[in-house]
Amino acid sequence: AWGSSRRCRWASIPGPNMREAASMYGTAVAIFLVILVAGTLELSWNVSYVQEDVHFQLLVRGLKAGVLFGMSDRGELENADLVVLWTDGGRSYFADAWSDQKGRIHLDNQQDYQLLQAQGTPDGLVLLFKRPFATCDPKDYLIEDGTVHLVYGILEEPFQSLEAINISSLHTGLQRVQLLKPEVPTPAVPADTRTMEIRAPDVLIPSEETTYWCYITELPQGFPRHHIVMYEPIITEGNEALVHHMEVFQCTATFESFPHFSGPCDSKMKPQRLSYCRHVLAAWALGAKAFYYPEEAGLAFGGPGSSRYLRLEVHYHNPLKIPGRRDSSGIRLYYTATLRRFDAGIMELGLVYTPVMAIPPKETAFVLTGYCTDKCTQLALPSSGVHIFASQLHTHLTGRKVVTVLARDGRETEIVNRDNHYSPHFQVGRRVTPPPGDVLITSCTYNTEDRKLATVGGFGILEEMCVNYVHYYPQTQLELCKSAVDPGFLQKYFHLVNRFNSEDFCTCPQATVPQQFASVPWNSFSRDVLRALYAFAPISMHCNRSSAVRFQGEWDLQPLPEIVSTLEEPTPHCPTRGAQSPAGPTVVNIGRGRA
Amino acid sequence: AWGSSRRCRWASIPGPNMREAASMYGTAVAIFLVILVAGTLELSWNVSYVQEDVHFQLLVRGLKAGVLFGMSDRGELENADLVVLWTDGGRSYFADAWSDQKGRIHLDNQQDYQLLQAQGTPDGLVLLFKRPFATCDPKDYLIEDGTVHLVYGILEEPFQSLEAINISSLHTGLQRVQLLKPEVPTPAVPADTRTMEIRAPDVLIPSEETTYWCYITELPQGFPRHHIVMYEPIITEGNEALVHHMEVFQCTATFESFPHFSGPCDSKMKPQRLSYCRHVLAAWALGAKAFYYPEEAGLAFGGPGSSRYLRLEVHYHNPLKIPGRRDSSGIRLYYTATLRRFDAGIMELGLVYTPVMAIPPKETAFVLTGYCTDKCTQLALPSSGVHIFASQLHTHLTGRKVVTVLARDGRETEIVNRDNHYSPHFQVGRRVTPPPGDVLITSCTYNTEDRKLATVGGFGILEEMCVNYVHYYPQTQLELCKSAVDPGFLQKYFHLVNRFNSEDFCTCPQATVPQQFASVPWNSFSRDVLRALYAFAPISMHCNRSSAVRFQGEWDLQPLPEIVSTLEEPTPHCPTRGAQSPAGPTVVNIGRGRA
Repeated sequence: AWGSSRRCRWASIPGPNMREAASMYGTAVAIFLVILVAGTLELSWNVSYVQEDVHFQLLVRGLKAGVLFGMSDRGELENADLVVLWTDGGRSYFADAWSDQKGRIHLDNQQDYQLLQAQGTPDGLVLLFKRPFATCDPKDYLIEDGTVHLVYGILEEPFQSLEAINISSLHTGLQRVQLLKPEVPTPAVPADTRTMEIRAPDVLIPSEETTYWCYITELPQGFPRHHIVMYEPIITEGNEALVHHMEVFQCTATFESFPHFSGPCDSKMKPQRLSYCRHVLAAWALGAKAFYYPEEAGLAFGGPGSSRYLRLEVHYHNPLKIPGRRDSSGIRLYYTATLRRFDAGIMELGLVYTPVMAIPPKETAFVLTGYCTDKCTQLALPSSGVHIFASQLHTHLTGRKVVTVLARDGRETEIVNRDNHYSPHFQVGRRVTPPPGDVLITSCTYNTEDRKLATVGGFGILEEMCVNYVHYYPQTQLELCKSAVDPGFLQKYFHLVNRFNSEDFCTCPQATVPQQFASVPWNSFSRDVLRALYAFAPISMHCNRSSAVRFQGEWDLQPLPEIVSTLEEPTPHCPTRGAQSPAGPTVVNIGRGRA
Repeated sequence: AWGSSRRCRWASIPGPNMREAASMYGTAVAIFLVILVAGTLELSWNVSYVQEDVHFQLLVRGLKAGVLFGMSDRGELENADLVVLWTDGGRSYFADAWSDQKGRIHLDNQQDYQLLQAQGTPDGLVLLFKRPFATCDPKDYLIEDGTVHLVYGILEEPFQSLEAINISSLHTGLQRVQLLKPEVPTPAVPADTRTMEIRAPDVLIPSEETTYWCYITELPQGFPRHHIVMYEPIITEGNEALVHHMEVFQCTATFESFPHFSGPCDSKMKPQRLSYCRHVLAAWALGAKAFYYPEEAGLAFGGPGSSRYLRLEVHYHNPLKIPGRRDSSGIRLYYTATLRRFDAGIMELGLVYTPVMAIPPKETAFVLTGYCTDKCTQLALPSSGVHIFASQLHTHLTGRKVVTVLARDGRETEIVNRDNHYSPHFQVGRRVTPPPGDVLITSCTYNTEDRKLATVGGFGILEEMCVNYVHYYPQTQLELCKSAVDPGFLQKYFHLVNRFNSEDFCTCPQATVPQQFASVPWNSFSRDVLRALYAFAPISMHCNRSSAVRFQGEWDLQPLPEIVSTLEEPTPHCPTRGAQSPAGPTVVNIGRGRA
């Protein structure tokens, strides 16, 4: 059955990821392929949500002495869950193994990878093996939604045993994928689809680490109402590493016209009016592919009542401060005049970009949380709720996990999107959840072990964000629903930490919040109390329309939503291990068919 | 083999519990028996530390329709790990089951209790079954050192299925045991052993909830040096529920004589000098049995250089304030003139009895920690260290877990004693660990869900303690090595909580610490910051000799010992489940031999 199954490059399956849609196919499984090493290793896989297992097919071209393949938390070869194919010079073996924190490989007590077939083909050796999502072996990786860091290594020579393999001497690598990404049929693009490129032509990328470039363009005169049905990034060749993220905004219809501009968004030359261009039409970040709307919805633009003016924002990340680089990156919109049933919308959840939300240095897993309160959703969302069909998570460099969860009456009810192995370099719209909307809680977990000072919230690449762009329909006026701690309570925090420590530090009123954070003596008390502050102090809510105007109401000093019951981690379903599981390595007859 | 094995009542196996001693017996296993319901249920068990499993033998006298038996966190029938023998009227079944938080019974996905034999005997039905310590099934109880709460129930009528069993309609009960209590041969009592009863004769128990009664007695003139080799409680019949704990102290030899006294320890009539009677000779608390010294050691008393005067302290717990009750409880000492190789000592670890250590109300698992710092052990312990052969954990009513751990250079190295299911009503000396001594950290976990105000440290039954009486040899001058947070830092805490809350509360300097705690508004911030305070603030050390005099040195404002590496919970060794494990209930042929 495998041979006849559809294969497609993983890179070509973009768009929203619908578990629900996949379940329509019953036991039909999705099949994905990723090239691990061009010309050498090729992985296809195949997910059964019914059996809760993954079938892997690893094609090894030009096999030398073996190969190792597996998964680890963030793509490291230490503490990895591995399968190893190796030879001692005579026989070849296949085994479930794991590497310890020093990278030494050990045979797993439980053999959870089960070899189904090892076959020589004209292309190379094909290994077919399967593994349950959860094995309940503490040495094993738990396969779940979100990013999975695949690791691999090529064995060039025989090893007498697993323990003899020296990882540091191997050619190894890493590939980020979503293993549990059910195949969603790419929605058909209507026959009348046209494209439009929103690009800032010939930008001279500043030799600064962080630049947000603003460019104003406009739709043709009399451009009627259309639906965007898909968009994709256009990256100027050679600048792939410099373009960190891009967004297309529509300006407000309040003003008849907007001045043209192309320059840094924080430039003093930037016309004030451009801050009224905040309605998101498209958002892309490093690692994401094309974005498709579901067949029943599209993002409206053009026509009466909407502005012709668009703002493109490009975040250039130029850490080497390379001078003289020119760029014309942007976004290509695919749109149709045949309006779909629903207007789609994009809503920004998480934390306001402000330094009051900060992470102490040397933290391994510090959590910051942004709220979209019931007060805001009650005002802004229709009584029937909204349908969320995709979401894009975003942090900067220290982000490790991101989750958005729905809560009602203090009880968490559903996860909107979660990535427990989030990588700032791999950001794809993924989970889909049906409506309603009371409180939306977005939490990001950060690792600041390599930082010496506090990491504050902000736009810079060394500052942090905690954002989830939620795609939904029907469209509402709500553009942004984010929070931050009340600044007055943060000042109380600085005072009390000062009082508690013998050494005084600067809490002078003229100091900026980043300066105040920089002078906090970080000990267990100041860390714990900052955590306690964020878990207790009232928040300032940003509950904004696309016009950048807040919805009417009191949004400062709002009580923190109280959560009395959290969603339990699902108890992993441990597989029943029977006679089929081998107790140790399996001898493999390479090139002679079945193992 | 079972029939011929030694059986003894659990109640008659007292004394220190030595894993090391047991290991001398190789694979020999200890066998224990406990009567669950007199005349109905009798449980024997049998531990294999090599196989890491427990064999249970349940004798059911006068079987009606079945029986359920199992283990749960604190003896409740909800969230319990169960085996059930039941009949649907026709066949009888045996199965591994579990009860949910509402007490509904479900079949376990993993059948980890394995029925080995079901046999009708003249005494009744004998069920023989086994279970590994750890099953790696999240629904199962983890069998470990410390208290295990056994639960049982009698089925009086057939049930169609497990799910149909209504626990609330059954006759059920609870028995606390130490399942993993290797059989240690009771050390032989020397032929020349004599006994002495230390009792306060004919005390009129005050009709107060908490009374510490002090009674002074003396050894005979010229009583030579002896070794106490065992002691046991003597409880006046009928007062079993009123006598909470008892201790025998020896007075200091500094004073030639001590006045006689029999009265409440806090009485104004109590002679001042009695506070110099603090060297512990024997300590007993509710639930404990006789205490045996190992054959190489005994507790010295009598002879030149030691005081003839003894103080008996009895903690009467009289919550119903029953008047007119008379009591002559005390402790019976067994002693020998044939001195053993080592003088034993008793050292008190944990928290000082002071209200500065407090637990907020409505906490499910609040941890308080007491330290015996390296500075104190360096001064007080011999360079070769001491050998700890027993330890007695003690808290009051809200204590749920107690652990003492050794640490050196910031790294935890060994557990001295731990009980994860600690019950204030079940306190027995248990774990044994070989020497050294740098930092000794004693942590107690409290549950104050039923309290409305903070629970402060102190002597009252509604106040809390966190104590480990450590029995060791060779004897040293160190009587007490305990700590509490620095009171000045606690005052800073009250100030900052006051500052953070809009409502003012009394932090008037004339308020006592319990009054200050009583007026703290308990929210997430004040709770978290108290936790942060105890984890950060310097401590005041009590590093005391038996004369109640501190060792020389600076003991106030000591830095909290920093622990950079904690002992990892051992990864449970999950049993390999094979064809021998049934997938569901086993049909039992009652009365016809093997299952």
